[in-house]
Amino acid sequence: MSSQRSGGRCGRAAKRAGSKAENAFDAAWLNWKNPYPPVEQFSADEIEAIHDASLKVLRDIGIKVLSADARRHYVNTGMSEEEDQVIRFDTDLLLDLLSKAPPEITLHGRSPHRSVTLGGPNVGISTSAGSPNCSDLQGGRRPGTQADFDNFARATQGFDVIHFFGPVVEPQDVPTHLRHFGMTRSVVTNTDKIPFVYFRGKQAVADTYEILRIAHGLSYEDFCNTPVSYSVANSNSPLQLDGLMCRGIIDAARAGQMMILTPFTLAGAMAPVTIPGALVMQNAEALAGMALSQIIRPGAPVCYGSFTSNVDMRTGAPAFGTPEYVKAAFASGQLARRYNLPLRSSAPTASNAPDAQATYETQMSLWGALMGGANMILHGAGWLEGGLTISAEKFIIDVEVLQMFAELFKPLQVNEATLGLEAIADVGHGGHFFGTQHTLDRFETAFYSPLLSDWDNFENWSDRGAVDATTRANQIFYDTVAAHEPPPLEPARLEEIDAFIARRTAEGGADIDR
Amino acid sequence: MSSQRSGGRCGRAAKRAGSKAENAFDAAWLNWKNPYPPVEQFSADEIEAIHDASLKVLRDIGIKVLSADARRHYVNTGMSEEEDQVIRFDTDLLLDLLSKAPPEITLHGRSPHRSVTLGGPNVGISTSAGSPNCSDLQGGRRPGTQADFDNFARATQGFDVIHFFGPVVEPQDVPTHLRHFGMTRSVVTNTDKIPFVYFRGKQAVADTYEILRIAHGLSYEDFCNTPVSYSVANSNSPLQLDGLMCRGIIDAARAGQMMILTPFTLAGAMAPVTIPGALVMQNAEALAGMALSQIIRPGAPVCYGSFTSNVDMRTGAPAFGTPEYVKAAFASGQLARRYNLPLRSSAPTASNAPDAQATYETQMSLWGALMGGANMILHGAGWLEGGLTISAEKFIIDVEVLQMFAELFKPLQVNEATLGLEAIADVGHGGHFFGTQHTLDRFETAFYSPLLSDWDNFENWSDRGAVDATTRANQIFYDTVAAHEPPPLEPARLEEIDAFIARRTAEGGADIDR
Repeated sequence: MSSQRSGGRCGRAAKRAGSKAENAFDAAWLNWKNPYPPVEQFSADEIEAIHDASLKVLRDIGIKVLSADARRHYVNTGMSEEEDQVIRFDTDLLLDLLSKAPPEITLHGRSPHRSVTLGGPNVGISTSAGSPNCSDLQGGRRPGTQADFDNFARATQGFDVIHFFGPVVEPQDVPTHLRHFGMTRSVVTNTDKIPFVYFRGKQAVADTYEILRIAHGLSYEDFCNTPVSYSVANSNSPLQLDGLMCRGIIDAARAGQMMILTPFTLAGAMAPVTIPGALVMQNAEALAGMALSQIIRPGAPVCYGSFTSNVDMRTGAPAFGTPEYVKAAFASGQLARRYNLPLRSSAPTASNAPDAQATYETQMSLWGALMGGANMILHGAGWLEGGLTISAEKFIIDVEVLQMFAELFKPLQVNEATLGLEAIADVGHGGHFFGTQHTLDRFETAFYSPLLSDWDNFENWSDRGAVDATTRANQIFYDTVAAHEPPPLEPARLEEIDAFIARRTAEGGADIDR
Repeated sequence: MSSQRSGGRCGRAAKRAGSKAENAFDAAWLNWKNPYPPVEQFSADEIEAIHDASLKVLRDIGIKVLSADARRHYVNTGMSEEEDQVIRFDTDLLLDLLSKAPPEITLHGRSPHRSVTLGGPNVGISTSAGSPNCSDLQGGRRPGTQADFDNFARATQGFDVIHFFGPVVEPQDVPTHLRHFGMTRSVVTNTDKIPFVYFRGKQAVADTYEILRIAHGLSYEDFCNTPVSYSVANSNSPLQLDGLMCRGIIDAARAGQMMILTPFTLAGAMAPVTIPGALVMQNAEALAGMALSQIIRPGAPVCYGSFTSNVDMRTGAPAFGTPEYVKAAFASGQLARRYNLPLRSSAPTASNAPDAQATYETQMSLWGALMGGANMILHGAGWLEGGLTISAEKFIIDVEVLQMFAELFKPLQVNEATLGLEAIADVGHGGHFFGTQHTLDRFETAFYSPLLSDWDNFENWSDRGAVDATTRANQIFYDTVAAHEPPPLEPARLEEIDAFIARRTAEGGADIDR
């Protein structure tokens, strides 16, 4: 049984999870592959019933489309326009359009190891996105600034288990017509994760794409054939697509950039109070929006977005990480696979503090999303308060859990060496395995080593001040920000970006409402 | 489509989860049935390789059995005794013995609705068990007392999602030879959940069974054919069964009471550093111990116990809720099903405080256990610090998550009413579902209503003092204790129990070391 003593690992550098310098480029962290078959909420017949009902909604009730341009595209393809801006969808035509969408999407990173594939077993994680506020233990909750945005970009860069950078917090100290310049410049200088592009009007989208094009050193033509960014279009549930979202869907499809169509279907509020009913609405809206992408450019990269949750029926407040949320996440995986499309899900919570509630609600959401087969987790790090705040401490708590999932997704090998019969015979009855060769050969890489968790005993932990996980997370967040190393960006490209921003600023920036 | 308006629910009393008086006897909370097929870590071939390796360990290395009585039973059945108290196991004989164990076990509650079935999709939850210390925000961490034990018993009685009452905390203010009297009297007066019986020597086990027999009003013969309690025998890993555990296994089998054989296989310490190797050892020890039950009484109720986790290789400290723990939990489900036996798993954490770490580690453990197909979750509420403490706040945090799982496990109906097409048509584009008949008919029971989570907005939450979840949990714990209602217990039985305890106390109690 000498084969189990493979040896040779002792000379290998110790790997410490969470320590970027030593841990960079762990392929399993950079490119997650979910090894588990997805958990299913419904039978195949039940999924077909939801599918059929959503097609019936699209055919008989239709979607109110507030953009004349988008309505024209739908009608030119053969959909019918009714009174009052409503588009009704021919079922065969719709399914034919959706069949052109790619089942797998590779988003290209500015550094080669940052490229991410979505679809099938592949999973990518994004930071939280779009919060007006940010919070930390030092400053409490406050409106976001450009400096806060920069800090979260730097923290994001520090963790390989995050693959996408969302617009973490709104820089409210920058006027809206210039805000996309500061945010996008921060992105390209602070992180090489795949960035998010807001659908805030034609000009802002075009400006953002131009900065990303320069940062990647791509020609216009190559840029339009190279997904390097992602955007989210939210339908205005129930059954409505507004002008800005239609504009963005069209612009992203033309630019060949990934668009996620996420209905905001809160059961009991903007969607039926029953989860199957809310899923019918989610499915109808998602299919309608993704179809517009395929009309504009067959094969445009689109992702099925699921965000179905429920409200507190006493107050109407949105709730997340609920049992109903988990069921909807499992079912959404089945629906996305029904159309052979990648699925975006989320890891949200309604908690107002980075506390136990935030932690269990986020884990319920995350387990539901990942075990349901989601390919992308948006709001994967930092989200609090139903998205109204991004929290420095919550960001680190989430990263710890994400790192655990990246390790969970690594398969285990069963062979003579790992079955360990020789070691078991050597140790015999009683005794321990600390000093055996089998252990010594493997101890440095055998187990996940935590970023945040403290496994010390109570006495030692108390002697160090009995610091709880949230407080430790604060320290780790700002340590990570302080240790930030900017990703490579050729000086000439940054110069070109700055010149572009200066020119466009002088021209008055962008009207974000059109 | 009028069938969807089933109506008639408006007159129904509002159900508030967590409010016992209104919520008692929800069958789905009292008898969990996991609707999801178990997640599998290994292929069938890999499970066979672990099975084969563990049988090889039992045949070639054997188990050191420190009880002469137990060795005699093994040898009389046909196993061989080697030098130095080691029993080696014939494979066919072992598998034949294990085939006699029941695949499903019903434990009988003192109140009929407290009976619990384990095995197949059935799941039961126990409190945390066996901590020397307890803690709460008021008093901090301190050695447990009988009063603390009583409080946790009362809190346990308040939540229907807990089915088993473990020995929550050690009453260190009671001398060891009398401790089982106070604990068992507290059990039968404070809760009708299925109780735990410690394997602390022949006399203490006999005393405890006698008190339970009286409380149930059973004859001696009926008691021995009615499982009303559970016990855990831990093997002294690696590959050792001590005298007290052997004694308990024999006593429980004779009394027809459920015994869980749980190896304490921490990978890297008492078990190989590889998870497959640790599972080989877990499986060998579990099979050997359960076989002893079947020798004593074929068909005795036994449960396969899984507790495999890993240690921190830098310090040797045990870790829980790790990625390795989850993988072992998934695999343990496969192993237990391989032998057609119920599986006990756990929801542990190494955290020293009822904080975010305690919460995410426990959720990792719990998801791993439940999605892996565990039938019983021991340490399901209150566990902290690797089991050294039970926490009042953690107890409530765990109950909230358990209630969410009980709701998650309720299946969803997909039919014309739940698909909600009529409601979707009624609301149309824009608008909301708050006031529709479809919502009004269902809003009171549509969603889980939380015990602990606060879904209010930041401003209202702040106005109420910005109280975090852990602090809210403390209040809920002591409110539950204060609202405790003792379960029914006929006065004559309590008199008989008290007379028995008085007599046995006068006789000197029990020597818990033999």
